[in-house]
Amino acid sequence: MVIVMKPTAAQSDIDYVIRRASSLSLQAHVSDQNGHTVIGLLGDLKGLNLDALAGLRGVEGIRLMTQPFRLASREFKREPTTVCVKDCTIGGRRVVVAAGPCSVETERQLRNAADVVKRAGGHLLRGGAFKPRSSPYSFQGLAEEGLKLLADAREATGLPIVTEVLSSEQVPLVGRYADVLQIGARNMQNFALLRAVGETRMPVLLKRSMMSTLEELLLSAEYILSHGNPNVILCERGIRTFETYTRNTLDISAVPALKELTHLPVIVDPSHATGKASLVKAVSKAAVAAGADGLLIEVHPEPENALSDGSQSLAPQQFVELMREVEPIAEAVGRSV
Amino acid sequence: MVIVMKPTAAQSDIDYVIRRASSLSLQAHVSDQNGHTVIGLLGDLKGLNLDALAGLRGVEGIRLMTQPFRLASREFKREPTTVCVKDCTIGGRRVVVAAGPCSVETERQLRNAADVVKRAGGHLLRGGAFKPRSSPYSFQGLAEEGLKLLADAREATGLPIVTEVLSSEQVPLVGRYADVLQIGARNMQNFALLRAVGETRMPVLLKRSMMSTLEELLLSAEYILSHGNPNVILCERGIRTFETYTRNTLDISAVPALKELTHLPVIVDPSHATGKASLVKAVSKAAVAAGADGLLIEVHPEPENALSDGSQSLAPQQFVELMREVEPIAEAVGRSV
Amino acid sequence: MVIVMKPTAAQSDIDYVIRRASSLSLQAHVSDQNGHTVIGLLGDLKGLNLDALAGLRGVEGIRLMTQPFRLASREFKREPTTVCVKDCTIGGRRVVVAAGPCSVETERQLRNAADVVKRAGGHLLRGGAFKPRSSPYSFQGLAEEGLKLLADAREATGLPIVTEVLSSEQVPLVGRYADVLQIGARNMQNFALLRAVGETRMPVLLKRSMMSTLEELLLSAEYILSHGNPNVILCERGIRTFETYTRNTLDISAVPALKELTHLPVIVDPSHATGKASLVKAVSKAAVAAGADGLLIEVHPEPENALSDGSQSLAPQQFVELMREVEPIAEAVGRSV
Amino acid sequence: MVIVMKPTAAQSDIDYVIRRASSLSLQAHVSDQNGHTVIGLLGDLKGLNLDALAGLRGVEGIRLMTQPFRLASREFKREPTTVCVKDCTIGGRRVVVAAGPCSVETERQLRNAADVVKRAGGHLLRGGAFKPRSSPYSFQGLAEEGLKLLADAREATGLPIVTEVLSSEQVPLVGRYADVLQIGARNMQNFALLRAVGETRMPVLLKRSMMSTLEELLLSAEYILSHGNPNVILCERGIRTFETYTRNTLDISAVPALKELTHLPVIVDPSHATGKASLVKAVSKAAVAAGADGLLIEVHPEPENALSDGSQSLAPQQFVELMREVEPIAEAVGRSV
Repeated sequence: MVIVMKPTAAQSDIDYVIRRASSLSLQAHVSDQNGHTVIGLLGDLKGLNLDALAGLRGVEGIRLMTQPFRLASREFKREPTTVCVKDCTIGGRRVVVAAGPCSVETERQLRNAADVVKRAGGHLLRGGAFKPRSSPYSFQGLAEEGLKLLADAREATGLPIVTEVLSSEQVPLVGRYADVLQIGARNMQNFALLRAVGETRMPVLLKRSMMSTLEELLLSAEYILSHGNPNVILCERGIRTFETYTRNTLDISAVPALKELTHLPVIVDPSHATGKASLVKAVSKAAVAAGADGLLIEVHPEPENALSDGSQSLAPQQFVELMREVEPIAEAVGRSV
Repeated sequence: MVIVMKPTAAQSDIDYVIRRASSLSLQAHVSDQNGHTVIGLLGDLKGLNLDALAGLRGVEGIRLMTQPFRLASREFKREPTTVCVKDCTIGGRRVVVAAGPCSVETERQLRNAADVVKRAGGHLLRGGAFKPRSSPYSFQGLAEEGLKLLADAREATGLPIVTEVLSSEQVPLVGRYADVLQIGARNMQNFALLRAVGETRMPVLLKRSMMSTLEELLLSAEYILSHGNPNVILCERGIRTFETYTRNTLDISAVPALKELTHLPVIVDPSHATGKASLVKAVSKAAVAAGADGLLIEVHPEPENALSDGSQSLAPQQFVELMREVEPIAEAVGRSV
Repeated sequence: MVIVMKPTAAQSDIDYVIRRASSLSLQAHVSDQNGHTVIGLLGDLKGLNLDALAGLRGVEGIRLMTQPFRLASREFKREPTTVCVKDCTIGGRRVVVAAGPCSVETERQLRNAADVVKRAGGHLLRGGAFKPRSSPYSFQGLAEEGLKLLADAREATGLPIVTEVLSSEQVPLVGRYADVLQIGARNMQNFALLRAVGETRMPVLLKRSMMSTLEELLLSAEYILSHGNPNVILCERGIRTFETYTRNTLDISAVPALKELTHLPVIVDPSHATGKASLVKAVSKAAVAAGADGLLIEVHPEPENALSDGSQSLAPQQFVELMREVEPIAEAVGRSV
Repeated sequence: MVIVMKPTAAQSDIDYVIRRASSLSLQAHVSDQNGHTVIGLLGDLKGLNLDALAGLRGVEGIRLMTQPFRLASREFKREPTTVCVKDCTIGGRRVVVAAGPCSVETERQLRNAADVVKRAGGHLLRGGAFKPRSSPYSFQGLAEEGLKLLADAREATGLPIVTEVLSSEQVPLVGRYADVLQIGARNMQNFALLRAVGETRMPVLLKRSMMSTLEELLLSAEYILSHGNPNVILCERGIRTFETYTRNTLDISAVPALKELTHLPVIVDPSHATGKASLVKAVSKAAVAAGADGLLIEVHPEPENALSDGSQSLAPQQFVELMREVEPIAEAVGRSV
């Protein structure tokens, strides 16, 4: 249930509503929406006297929430949420591009990639220091050494960093270096990790699991939101289907569907979705046309020598072309890159 | 195997190659590509003396075909194929929009829908007279009466007609009224039907089955092509996955993937893919951005009263908006609507 | 809606009910169930006066049908249906095994396969004369010649024949030779074909499409039943999923689920489901343990030389072992093979 | 690569091979297989002189491993592995049944469930104290209080306990109470957790994720094995597909497929696979017939009042029947319950 306060409500009115909620064993999530204080009430609402609540001083109205995800829903918050990463705003007019290598491999590789991203007009640098790999014998990433290289590349280029955190214990370490904490698809329902990033206030990029529904994605976002962190960015990266020509199947309808269901920003990862560099450009354009707030793109100075995901990484020149071709699409939907 | 003849080759040179092929029990498919006569040879190529063939008079070169679909492949024909439906060209610079109701229901409903399509700038009128329905108790369409109403609507608006044919016996009847024969997703591997439409020279709109791979779609196209009909248009309309928020999951990557694999035009059906009118506009824009040659859209004068697929049909005003918003996307990829 | 007549109802009572139904534009399906005449009424039941119907002479009671498949449902008929193929009963105490090669290839191959099936205790001979193949260039079967070889093998072994019919035009031809008409997975929603076999009274083996739900399978059965043919056998043969180790994924839960939903017999095809001969025996035992009424098994005298599906065909000795190992499982569930 | 030592090899011979491996930067996994010491070598094997290794004293032979999962493969170890949980052996002749409620709710509920399991002949008690729930607002389990109730129930009945551990930090706590650590489907690729349980020597029940292939399941097992814990039990619990009649689709072929690929024991969870109590009995029989080494069954004293998964939990009497009906199936495949 959502209690919308009048713009003229006094702080004491708001505090009174929160105390009432607390006396009813309800959890109150307060946010500022369009000049109104809005109080989301979570807990057992059965038997609640709605008229009594609606009649409290300063209350403008009450809205019910029917979706199982509450704080993530459009019912709770009608205006789109923006997440700020340094001076880059995700969810606003600008389509934000985060790009970089799958794994941080060497200082030289990362620096080259970062330069490419910067020069082509990308906004964020992505790269994995801790890699979740199906096999224990695959390259697992450079760990903290990789985080340091990312920080150096940020220093050199000014690009904020998006990097993955694999477990709740790692949150403090990765949080010291990263600007955005990425939760990978395999960890979308690692609830301990969701709680841990929910207790920070850092931007979190939450990737949809390859076998989860949109509702499950939003419930995972709800874990983060309900622990107090409002800075959640959703990412569609392809789901698992029977089709084998592509690595996964990008669910393009998920972009407008999520926009209906939630106020959170939505970005798309065409690299993991397709698994094929030759398809990334077309799918990136589709994502922006469908309303995505950003793109997550794998770029490698030498894709043929990548330690992971080489077949889906763009070479520098391909990324330059992608940025050039995405621009007019962004304009066609009233945005810019 | 593809034999490319020199532009200067005489007809007698071409005939000689065909006779040689025939004497080796190979089937020859002759086509004109960019000023060259090209002869595709199908059959058991093992033990063939390629040097001897390459040395025949008028032969410019030989290309091998590695894909299981031969005539549909880019290896056979590098230039995109265009399919002409009256004065509308599918696969060219223009993005073609076929729109109309799921089922033809009444003269008034169809005429209203056709007027909406025409006025909003659509190019073809779609509508089902024979409906494939999961249940024997659902509305099965008006049959020939529906075909007549379609012909009347064509008369009134000038829009060519796309309508579905359900079985090989129906091909002559539907062929008398339709401008484009549609093969529905459930019939994508109805091989008797594929052969029957392959023996006509009419444009065929072949929808991907909701559980078929791209390779299987192209092999079904190959049934039509190998029976002599080159006028095949492919249609991605969503595949079946675990996600239930949408009716199917549109495989947007299929658009650039098919463009890599085949020379045939590719259109997208966002209505069946999503099953939700609210998502159709965004997905249409995505399809055009990804390179689709056209769209297949369900429009109904009163979606809430439709006898089938009402929830995914656009109301007239929604279709007008779709056409208006798709235009700048088409321009952004160097095309028009 | 189902009207159950008293055991003592006179024929004139039954006729009167049918005439009443007809005057209400309802279709009446009469069947004999456990000594009661049962009349299923299909059509628009809105506004029907149930009390008036329940009060007619000879009527014992009325049951509503809530499932979209009516005649196929347990609500229409509570007792299991048995389908008789010569002296072989499918759906009774015996677990019925239909086995043979994927395709009829030569007289010798078929005769050897039939002998193996007969000697190992199989009950029906399966083999395809018309083969639905994804590619137009794959072996398409021997056509009528194959049907004749099947008839010869029946003559020699006494085994009734199960063979596939691909289109409605083929029904008369295939019907002259076959004892059971098989509808393949790709044709499960070929509604023209369903109607055509529905108009015969021959046993029909209806395979679940690799992309259809149980409800869709039962609605396809309903097409056959509602055209007057009660002799439908359902077959689970694996659905399409992301797993690639097996050709398809056998949905073993479909066996008890279908037993809840329908009175029709259910058999299982472990050969197509797994695509691997090494898994067929274990999956066959699972199917019988789960309650399947029969098995459909690919057996080939020399699987390594098969023109189709060799990797999933059992060699003769493997089939002998399968029959030996399935027997104690059948006994454990109170049946025999 | 696997080095098989002669039965007569001296300890010094074995030590010498291990030192050689170490000098080549290879990791050596030593195990005793059928009276032979077997040394699995993991690492970069390129350029290795196999003849030199094969010629070392005490070496009987060398086998190559081609599967990406090494220690889990049949290539590494041909004999089936058994995992002992107190006096209960999983992977031996006996089919082992672990049963109990989804969540531990109250002392009374758990004690009643444990008594039912014990009296009906179950071998292990399952129950969740930490519950991974899609929604942050669903019941999350009793935490350590639940573990204590499980320990009390073990005390009372003698049944060892299977319970889920959700994160690497929880391993010490859960390990103090549990006899078997369960890794749930959502955590199958939580690599931090896999490493943590790999560093214990406790039996681990590893559930297949609803979106993972068999190869990915075995690679997750490999994480545990390669950290030194050989006591891994695999569990098939249904994969996610388009079918909605059941909660998931049990992949019955996975049982014999895993038996081909790995030496590890394989059990089946029909409760989560089907999500419907009415289907659990039939699917349990199928699992045992297919060769499963055990079953994981949800039993609740009052399913209609369960805080989670009530619709798939068996009532006590249903569980008694299941145990009675599974017994003859086990005997039919040469085993007992």
